[in-house]
Amino acid sequence: MARRAAAGLLRRLGPLAGELQARGMSPTHYGTTNHGFSRFYLLQVAHIQRNPAYSVLNSDDVSYFKIVLGESSVVQDEDRVAVANVDWMGKYKGSSQLLLLPKSTTEVSKILSYCNSRRLAVVPQGGNTGLVGGSVPVHDEVIISLGGMNNIISFDNVNGILTCEAGCVLENLSSFVENKGFIMPLDLGAKGSCHIGGNISTNAGGLRFIRYGSLHGNVLGLEVVLADGTVLDMLTTLRKDNTGYDLKHLFIGSEGSLGVVTKAAILTPAKLPSTNVAFLSCNDYMSCQKLLLAAKRNLGEIVSAFEFMDRHCIDLAMKYLEGVQNPLPASPYSFYVLIETTGSDESYDKAKLEAFLLRSMEDGLVADGVIAQDISQASNFWRVREGISEASVKVGAVYKYDLSIPVEKLYDIVEEIRSRVGGMGEVLGYGHLGDGNLHLNIVSNKYSDKILAQIEPFVYEWTSNQRGSISAEHGLGLMKAEKIHYSKSSEAVQLMGSIKNPYCSWKRSYGAELIEPSLWLVPIQRRL
Amino acid sequence: MARRAAAGLLRRLGPLAGELQARGMSPTHYGTTNHGFSRFYLLQVAHIQRNPAYSVLNSDDVSYFKIVLGESSVVQDEDRVAVANVDWMGKYKGSSQLLLLPKSTTEVSKILSYCNSRRLAVVPQGGNTGLVGGSVPVHDEVIISLGGMNNIISFDNVNGILTCEAGCVLENLSSFVENKGFIMPLDLGAKGSCHIGGNISTNAGGLRFIRYGSLHGNVLGLEVVLADGTVLDMLTTLRKDNTGYDLKHLFIGSEGSLGVVTKAAILTPAKLPSTNVAFLSCNDYMSCQKLLLAAKRNLGEIVSAFEFMDRHCIDLAMKYLEGVQNPLPASPYSFYVLIETTGSDESYDKAKLEAFLLRSMEDGLVADGVIAQDISQASNFWRVREGISEASVKVGAVYKYDLSIPVEKLYDIVEEIRSRVGGMGEVLGYGHLGDGNLHLNIVSNKYSDKILAQIEPFVYEWTSNQRGSISAEHGLGLMKAEKIHYSKSSEAVQLMGSIKNPYCSWKRSYGAELIEPSLWLVPIQRRL
Repeated sequence: MARRAAAGLLRRLGPLAGELQARGMSPTHYGTTNHGFSRFYLLQVAHIQRNPAYSVLNSDDVSYFKIVLGESSVVQDEDRVAVANVDWMGKYKGSSQLLLLPKSTTEVSKILSYCNSRRLAVVPQGGNTGLVGGSVPVHDEVIISLGGMNNIISFDNVNGILTCEAGCVLENLSSFVENKGFIMPLDLGAKGSCHIGGNISTNAGGLRFIRYGSLHGNVLGLEVVLADGTVLDMLTTLRKDNTGYDLKHLFIGSEGSLGVVTKAAILTPAKLPSTNVAFLSCNDYMSCQKLLLAAKRNLGEIVSAFEFMDRHCIDLAMKYLEGVQNPLPASPYSFYVLIETTGSDESYDKAKLEAFLLRSMEDGLVADGVIAQDISQASNFWRVREGISEASVKVGAVYKYDLSIPVEKLYDIVEEIRSRVGGMGEVLGYGHLGDGNLHLNIVSNKYSDKILAQIEPFVYEWTSNQRGSISAEHGLGLMKAEKIHYSKSSEAVQLMGSIKNPYCSWKRSYGAELIEPSLWLVPIQRRL
Repeated sequence: MARRAAAGLLRRLGPLAGELQARGMSPTHYGTTNHGFSRFYLLQVAHIQRNPAYSVLNSDDVSYFKIVLGESSVVQDEDRVAVANVDWMGKYKGSSQLLLLPKSTTEVSKILSYCNSRRLAVVPQGGNTGLVGGSVPVHDEVIISLGGMNNIISFDNVNGILTCEAGCVLENLSSFVENKGFIMPLDLGAKGSCHIGGNISTNAGGLRFIRYGSLHGNVLGLEVVLADGTVLDMLTTLRKDNTGYDLKHLFIGSEGSLGVVTKAAILTPAKLPSTNVAFLSCNDYMSCQKLLLAAKRNLGEIVSAFEFMDRHCIDLAMKYLEGVQNPLPASPYSFYVLIETTGSDESYDKAKLEAFLLRSMEDGLVADGVIAQDISQASNFWRVREGISEASVKVGAVYKYDLSIPVEKLYDIVEEIRSRVGGMGEVLGYGHLGDGNLHLNIVSNKYSDKILAQIEPFVYEWTSNQRGSISAEHGLGLMKAEKIHYSKSSEAVQLMGSIKNPYCSWKRSYGAELIEPSLWLVPIQRRL
């Protein structure tokens, strides 16, 4: 019966072309802050003491910055600084009194050089959309916002190589390259606010990872300013360059702790004319896994997204998101999968996806399904998936985890946590199944130590036992800086410390401190 | 007329399936050495003095190694050590007296720990197929061959993740994963001899780069032994892991100078059932460029190789390679292009390639062309392309350059060099056009300072002026260690030095020396 119903729902998709990329038109939903639950988290980080080795900002410092940057780029206004002191979820809050807005690499270099010689702690800030407290001050660090450096420098039409400043908003870059016939290799919910420099510094993953891989593969070159103000020009636009160590990889994902990314050259794939989106349901997690394997085999080169979410996610999305419809309202299923394909042949790609879905139904992998027949339907499918995070926050309290786990075991932890939390909260499992990346959210009306005690350290220990990662794509930030040992060996952590050490010559006398991850795995200089 | 002739030649390809991967069945053609022209190059490196800070091997050292590794893994036999002292082209020759054959990571660790404490210089060696003198001793370094560590550890059938020891031969890994329905993400001419550990240490590029990208994207995890014997376990099999610095990237492409790769986890793409190969000719380089752009747009997701070669390459291949036929013998053309597609639908992919070629002929981009109609034809096409390097060596003397240059300018340097060399030699331009990677070979009957003076430093200066790379995929090795400044800024080189520094604690007292690239950009410890 499911098969019949599903076959009836398989409708042809209208001429979507690349316009689907505009699905993220959803406004800057990362732009607001919610101070309602900041107290809880602030308690968590309260034990971190300010390192007395840092100087305290004085009026001479401010005068110097005004000379170098001009009055309007040196912000002391309380309200404006307050916004930059807190992350978008209101979880982490610093007490900085100065926000600097450099407009060029030279200005960033002058700021860092000065702060280095004065031993003033700094924190670089992009779109401030991070989820782990990596982009806001812990204490009174000087905030360096890259928002004023938002120019596109060049675009190579033949090879699809974009060179731009770090403060460009991802969505703006997307629009720019799409007009040239290319797409950005990454796409994520925060695209309306996040900066490409922040994406690179946190090695953002997102929705296109399954097709285009990580930023380690897509970033061709970087310009970075080191803590002492040295400008490191690695802004090559070459596909291949085996001359010495490929240093750019150190800055991709190191969360600003080794330097400030100021410019980037990015390889953008050609925009292909045909995009299709299917929204499916499965009766159990094993079927989701088998469907993924079948999609890799049979859709192969055209798969561009394979996302999954459990029933609890759909229920929450329907309850809290305005104007979103359940694509499969007939009856509730245990799991839902969103598959997107992107290819160069409209009619062929559609036929291929339809044939794949019908076969998957015959094989019993898919219980029900629908293919978007116009842009509005496709946007709605994506809105369900992308809105889960937004819906979670609306419940009141949300404990967010971002785990990499072998696909076979990926849903086990959701069930374990569900059983541990019991009636105290709702447990949601969703994420980028194609990449083995689970987003685990536990939502409740308010924060409670009792719930947290059921989650941590269990979730980290369990993930570590599976040789998984406690941060697949969100980074460590302040939230997980001290948790690094769950995913990295002590030898590796020690080596990271020894790499950070030489970057800033005056730091060497403090070398011993640097190998403690809680000290060095935070943005440049702070808490040294 | 060309269009008619070409259309006639467009033949359907027989059921190639994945068997085309077996095209590299060409025997281990990197296995022999040619001592005929070693004298010339040995003169070039003769100015490098042995650093007296290193100890000289004594009988106690040898006894220690025999206890740790067993008698049979400690090779002093002159003939066997001689083979490991020289690279496959006979260009670079060391004077080591000891070859060690560890069988486990623990043994590698014990060797390095001992050598570190005794200050014995070492050089790690894989398949010894490199082209830049990176895998053989310069002086009397102890050679550590990874050839005895050639076990496949595991294969994850669901996610296509191969975990193996560093000494596995690439072709053996290819056969293994193909039997499981996957392919290796890299393929290169030396596959019959080269080791995966060497591929990773040199960030080998090769023929599948255009489709699957670099090893920075495909290597998921590594196990590495540092110079002091510390075993660094980064052998994760996760697609995503953002916990701290992604250290594995430091070891990918650093040519053994930061540690010895002992194990690797590699993401292998699904083997797709349909492969097609076309061999085409173009009248000018501009047409090759336009054809590349058109292929990216119209073949999009199924392009798996886009190689080019000039007429001089074809002439040489026909003259020196046995049993190879010119796929387009009717008349000589200026340029030839090999396009391979790999996809999941036999009949559709073929029709797509044929339609693309016919359109390209109508547009005047392609002068003539043929699609392989069976495996033998396809192998022949590939043999022409892959045999150019082999044919070059047979002329007598060959000056090899491996450059990354923006595609628009890529052939300019070939013409410049051709005009400078004049009648003294034949200049060949070929390579991975889809990646902007030119292989520039100048062949002559014998080596001559006069020819070299026409090439160097001009070729490096010219490449540097285009912001290109003087080593796209071959690495620096001994040949180009001192040339790094042509492609990297002095700040970057200095930073590389500061990263190498902390790896080996006893080196710190020699820190000042380490930032000279000629000293540190060679395998571990040697010439310190």
